[in-house]
Amino acid sequence: MNIVESLVQINKESQVPVYLQIANSIIAQIRRGTLKPESALPGSRVLADALNVHRKTVVAAYEELYAQSWVDSYPRRGIFVAKNLPDISPKALQENVTARSFPNATFFEIDEKRVPARKLFSPPPQQNIVISDGFPDTRLAPMELLVREYRRFGNYQFTSKYLMYGPELGSENLRSELAKFLAETRGMQVSTENILITKGVQMAMYLAAQLLVSKGDVVIVPEPGYPTGNDVFRYAGAQLAFAPVDEQGMDLNAVEDICKKKKVRMLYVIPHHHRPTTATLSSERRMQLLELAMKYRFAILEDDYDYDYHYASSPVLPLASADYYGSVIYVGSFCKTIAPGIRVGFVAAPQNLINHLARLRRMIDRQGEQLLEEALANLLRNGDINRHLKKTNKIYHERRDAFCHLLAEQLGDHVSFKIPDGGFAVWTRYLHGINSREVAEKANEMGLSLSSGDEYFHQSQNTEFVRLGFASLNFKEMEEGVDILRRVVRKFR
Amino acid sequence: MNIVESLVQINKESQVPVYLQIANSIIAQIRRGTLKPESALPGSRVLADALNVHRKTVVAAYEELYAQSWVDSYPRRGIFVAKNLPDISPKALQENVTARSFPNATFFEIDEKRVPARKLFSPPPQQNIVISDGFPDTRLAPMELLVREYRRFGNYQFTSKYLMYGPELGSENLRSELAKFLAETRGMQVSTENILITKGVQMAMYLAAQLLVSKGDVVIVPEPGYPTGNDVFRYAGAQLAFAPVDEQGMDLNAVEDICKKKKVRMLYVIPHHHRPTTATLSSERRMQLLELAMKYRFAILEDDYDYDYHYASSPVLPLASADYYGSVIYVGSFCKTIAPGIRVGFVAAPQNLINHLARLRRMIDRQGEQLLEEALANLLRNGDINRHLKKTNKIYHERRDAFCHLLAEQLGDHVSFKIPDGGFAVWTRYLHGINSREVAEKANEMGLSLSSGDEYFHQSQNTEFVRLGFASLNFKEMEEGVDILRRVVRKFR
Repeated sequence: MNIVESLVQINKESQVPVYLQIANSIIAQIRRGTLKPESALPGSRVLADALNVHRKTVVAAYEELYAQSWVDSYPRRGIFVAKNLPDISPKALQENVTARSFPNATFFEIDEKRVPARKLFSPPPQQNIVISDGFPDTRLAPMELLVREYRRFGNYQFTSKYLMYGPELGSENLRSELAKFLAETRGMQVSTENILITKGVQMAMYLAAQLLVSKGDVVIVPEPGYPTGNDVFRYAGAQLAFAPVDEQGMDLNAVEDICKKKKVRMLYVIPHHHRPTTATLSSERRMQLLELAMKYRFAILEDDYDYDYHYASSPVLPLASADYYGSVIYVGSFCKTIAPGIRVGFVAAPQNLINHLARLRRMIDRQGEQLLEEALANLLRNGDINRHLKKTNKIYHERRDAFCHLLAEQLGDHVSFKIPDGGFAVWTRYLHGINSREVAEKANEMGLSLSSGDEYFHQSQNTEFVRLGFASLNFKEMEEGVDILRRVVRKFR
Repeated sequence: MNIVESLVQINKESQVPVYLQIANSIIAQIRRGTLKPESALPGSRVLADALNVHRKTVVAAYEELYAQSWVDSYPRRGIFVAKNLPDISPKALQENVTARSFPNATFFEIDEKRVPARKLFSPPPQQNIVISDGFPDTRLAPMELLVREYRRFGNYQFTSKYLMYGPELGSENLRSELAKFLAETRGMQVSTENILITKGVQMAMYLAAQLLVSKGDVVIVPEPGYPTGNDVFRYAGAQLAFAPVDEQGMDLNAVEDICKKKKVRMLYVIPHHHRPTTATLSSERRMQLLELAMKYRFAILEDDYDYDYHYASSPVLPLASADYYGSVIYVGSFCKTIAPGIRVGFVAAPQNLINHLARLRRMIDRQGEQLLEEALANLLRNGDINRHLKKTNKIYHERRDAFCHLLAEQLGDHVSFKIPDGGFAVWTRYLHGINSREVAEKANEMGLSLSSGDEYFHQSQNTEFVRLGFASLNFKEMEEGVDILRRVVRKFR
């Protein structure tokens, strides 16, 4: 058997046409040097027989190789690897240097303290049940709709302008649809020019912090609160001041006490289903907070990341809906509406801020993914997003109820919790001094991935809590997960 | 005619199924209040006749409305708008406040000097021919291949993990394929752990600058050079030092002079087809530059954004291919290989740097678009990217030759230029004191959008040059564009 036949691998399951698979295999052999210039390739009939494919397929593969100048074809003699191979071989920088390995570390110094020493992402063990700290179920993401939109991008006439450099502010269509959506669902009187499209809430927060916070500026954050948010403010130079969160949200007396002592630049608040505690900032406190912002002239960064998921009572309108003087920077995203991996978020704010944020954004990543943004604009316009929200709200509502029921039934003696009004997780307190970190470690060994609530506390050590995400679990997974948790917790009793 | 019939609009061209269009129209009328709770909807036969659609379509629309709880259905009586509408109406924050307009400006102050006052993107007039300052032709982007990959994402089993939070470093598959690609095309001995996926070269530069540059640090940049790059270094706190660029690239004597006077933290270089001049840094200078980096212990930020497009002689291997001590941070992207709107770039560097950059990136936008990254990984693996590069290299090579021929023929008395070895643009000098800014303004009026080369100069005013991008123009567009330019230039003679 010829070397060509022995090395060509065909995967009939692959999306890649078989003729291209054959051509690619041969190119790889030429590159590797196993097939030398001017060596003969088998006749198409012979190769077709050896590979058990139609002869036309091999002919197509040879035509592809010819078009790419990898082979020469001589009438009556056959097909040969080209004498002059098409790859322009690059000039080596140094002659006579044998390839050395890539360096292990930089020669220049890196300030290790420049960025927070958080562990990089690593996926949970595959066989584990995962109770996340509160995500939507990615299996429910409306992928068939998104794929439908992407199919339209096969049309060059339509697509080519979205493949160029475009607006730093984001897709005009998406900004306009989003302005309508925010007006309709949140009572915010915004227009297109009040919207900046970002990569998730994360980039929205980063941009606001970078633009507004200078070294030493005071930023008020909730405690317990969002660790990556705190990192972002600190990275911008902020001195953090912590305001406790109770059942009605952030404690505004504590906020005013801070304002009286120090000039405050910004306050960060998660008004719906506070992360981690799920408390909702009451209407009264929202109005008071707006007044405090006027009185002490600070910016409110309102992170309303899961406004659209509310099951119990009515949601409370955002602070931004009653902000007539321009104190609020409202941020949200599609990362919860569709899936965390769909990295599209937004800022809604007065236009002067939006334009400055866009200039900053230009330096960071120039612009967003225009194709994705156009696709989302269309899903909003067609009402697909509204339909998806209705459908998933119903499912998560049921899951919340089922999960809380299970939790009370199986673990009622070991935990306490309040049923959350919305969102994706239950803020749960371990009783009897059970330690959340120890539970997480033990659970991981027993097949359950689980976070530990201590990461949400920044002022004090606190190991009593855990956020249990119900939204991404079907009933069977819930039962299995809670069952493992029950067994783990009993070990610590 | 009933109000329902008069307001339902059907667009048969739309991708949205007709039944959903009908349902959406009715929902909009209910939301607007034109259809009140408990009002009767027309019978399906009546509405079908009025809209000229099949009755089944109307029945499906009504079923959708029923499933979404917008209507009630009573046997023998018909379909009615629901008494209790499904939208949970949010609580107004303040009673008795009539809706006021969104604020025009922020109440808190913004430091206008924080971000460079560059103009935001605005598209060129639609009827204009556009000679860009050097982009690929987005009409040649392999969209059918990208769409093929996106179709696979319709499969939930396969896709759901890519919709979750994932690695800050980027897709493992893409990093691994890219490492192979860099080894094969650039002689770089990198592995997966040496790669960070970014949003274009822009984010790669931003991350490197933020991590490494502190206030007052000296960064050497080429002059003329890349304005947004300079913005990024300045934003990180850099004091810029300019090194002139000649026909062989950056002047290394000037670089060493700077190093002798000041402690240099970083040097930014575009070794292939320098932007704007298209000069290629010679092999000898590359080796010298590596030695300088060792001697003065600075980091080299190597921006090799169009290495893959080379027409004349062989390309020169990157500095990173001969960097055995860890001085080089190599950045590149798919923004030129596929299209500027496909925002995927990368950093290749020693692992300690890569991990720190990833931690920084986590604060900025958490992670990239995993779906897009997986799609690109597959295109690399299948050889699609290599095929696309071969095809477009051939086309741009022809376009370069045709464009330079036209330029010499039509404008030879008014401009001088050197045929570039690669890339997408010709660096062109106007003769006889013709002013590039005036040309750009006049050309714009006459139907040709054109940049002005003065933006590339930072130390001195210089209005003799313009970068003329040939790659995105077909022959007809070239002829028209150069014809307008000829007529404009003659006005200034």
